[in-house]
Amino acid sequence: MKKGVFITFEGNDGAGKTTVCKGVEAQLKQAGRDVLYTREPGGSRIAEAIRDLLLDPDNTDMDPRCEALLYAASRRQHLVEVILPALAEGKIVLCDRFIDSSLAYQGFARAIGIDAVYAINRFAIDDCMPDATIFLSVSTETGQKRMDLRGDKNRLDLENSAFHQKVRQGYEELIRRYPERITVIDAEPDQETVIKAAMQVVRKVVEPYE
Amino acid sequence: MKKGVFITFEGNDGAGKTTVCKGVEAQLKQAGRDVLYTREPGGSRIAEAIRDLLLDPDNTDMDPRCEALLYAASRRQHLVEVILPALAEGKIVLCDRFIDSSLAYQGFARAIGIDAVYAINRFAIDDCMPDATIFLSVSTETGQKRMDLRGDKNRLDLENSAFHQKVRQGYEELIRRYPERITVIDAEPDQETVIKAAMQVVRKVVEPYE
Ligand SMILES: Nc1ncnc2c1ncn2[C@@H]1O[C@H](COP(=O)(O)OP(=O)(O)OP(=O)(O)O)[C@@H](O)[C@H]1O
Ligand SMILES: Nc1ncnc2c1ncn2[C@@H]1O[C@H](COP(=O)(O)OP(=O)(O)OP(=O)(O)O)[C@@H](O)[C@H]1O
Ligand SMILES: [Mg+2]
Ligand SMILES: [Mg+2]
Repeated sequence: MKKGVFITFEGNDGAGKTTVCKGVEAQLKQAGRDVLYTREPGGSRIAEAIRDLLLDPDNTDMDPRCEALLYAASRRQHLVEVILPALAEGKIVLCDRFIDSSLAYQGFARAIGIDAVYAINRFAIDDCMPDATIFLSVSTETGQKRMDLRGDKNRLDLENSAFHQKVRQGYEELIRRYPERITVIDAEPDQETVIKAAMQVVRKVVEPYE
Repeated sequence: MKKGVFITFEGNDGAGKTTVCKGVEAQLKQAGRDVLYTREPGGSRIAEAIRDLLLDPDNTDMDPRCEALLYAASRRQHLVEVILPALAEGKIVLCDRFIDSSLAYQGFARAIGIDAVYAINRFAIDDCMPDATIFLSVSTETGQKRMDLRGDKNRLDLENSAFHQKVRQGYEELIRRYPERITVIDAEPDQETVIKAAMQVVRKVVEPYE
């Protein structure tokens, strides 16, 4: 049933994922390609309702494993409602964060364990792993500086700095585990340069399907 | 940390789980035991909110795997907020349906697969599997007749009869897999007889902890 190409974008907060996704989307569209940019919950009503639970500030007593299961549930519904139909239509799907975010943030940084979080996400994703994943590599300082410029002041305290380091370490472990799937791009340079590097990866992935 | 005893009750719809749980609870209380009867979502505010999503009649387009993940999430929160604290206080916890219901209903009857649903529930439960599980065995006809007497007319159509048969087959598979943990009780006789049989199992499980 799957005919399109599924590419995910990963990286620390403020690495430039959304910027690069949108840049790649624009270039693919200009080249006449059928492309969908999406991010969870991606307009799925049910996935959105699950997100509301996750983001409800009253839910401070939510257990980390409950949280991980809810992220996986939201991912599943978004996959089924948004990603799979687009792939079935032959589209190139660019997804802004996907399974690796859960593995790095909840599996590694929140210390549930990458393998455990992988197990529930494999259940959610079934056999629909990304064809390719682009990891945007910046120092946590750059990530924080970019978030700062964007106006996310509240994320810049010391505790978060240690947390972002852990997320980074989590991603590094994933890059070691999945060298075939994950391509690392240096995302320190200016946007144009980074988008160009991402387009090179995208072209290599898309070509075999042409 | 765990000091109490954790006993779950399983069986098809209308088998008499709630009736037997309450009967066992009453007898244990009469004997001066510290006992908690509970069922998911069990008064956990977050587990309840997840249940609301599951039971929302508008959510007919919910994917079965998303549903299974939400059940596991609700189970996790109920476990952490209700069951684990009671066990830590040394209570006997009687839980009306638990992991095996998901395995029989969603894993087997809804055909996701017992192993796959087991994986996400092991994530939810971690190392807190029940010390013992009592399976109340009735024919699907008896189950349906009892539901009928209780007034659940809408569940009695033909499609549901085939579904209840599948649930029953799912439980049979679980009984084969976990003969140490699951004890089958003939639940066809009158309530008094069934509760007596359940009390015999409960006593055997509770004794080693005394
Ligand atoms: N290569 C770049 N050089 C300089 N600034 C950049 C670059 N890429 C993105 N930015 C800017 O950095 C900020 C963060 O970028 P963006 O929102 O794309 O990051 P993100 O990885 O999507 O963040 P989040 O994890 O919060 O979603 C934005 O203000 C963006 O304009
Ligand atoms: N041993 C029994 N003999 C006859 N009737 C019974 C017996 N046990 C329970 N009942 C009656 O059958 C009906 C269903 O019992 P109960 O609600 O305990 O089943 P249950 O397994 O909890 O059902 P559900 O799966 O819907 O929660 C009730 O009306 C109850 O009074
Ligand atoms: Mg972004
Ligand atoms: Mg009941």
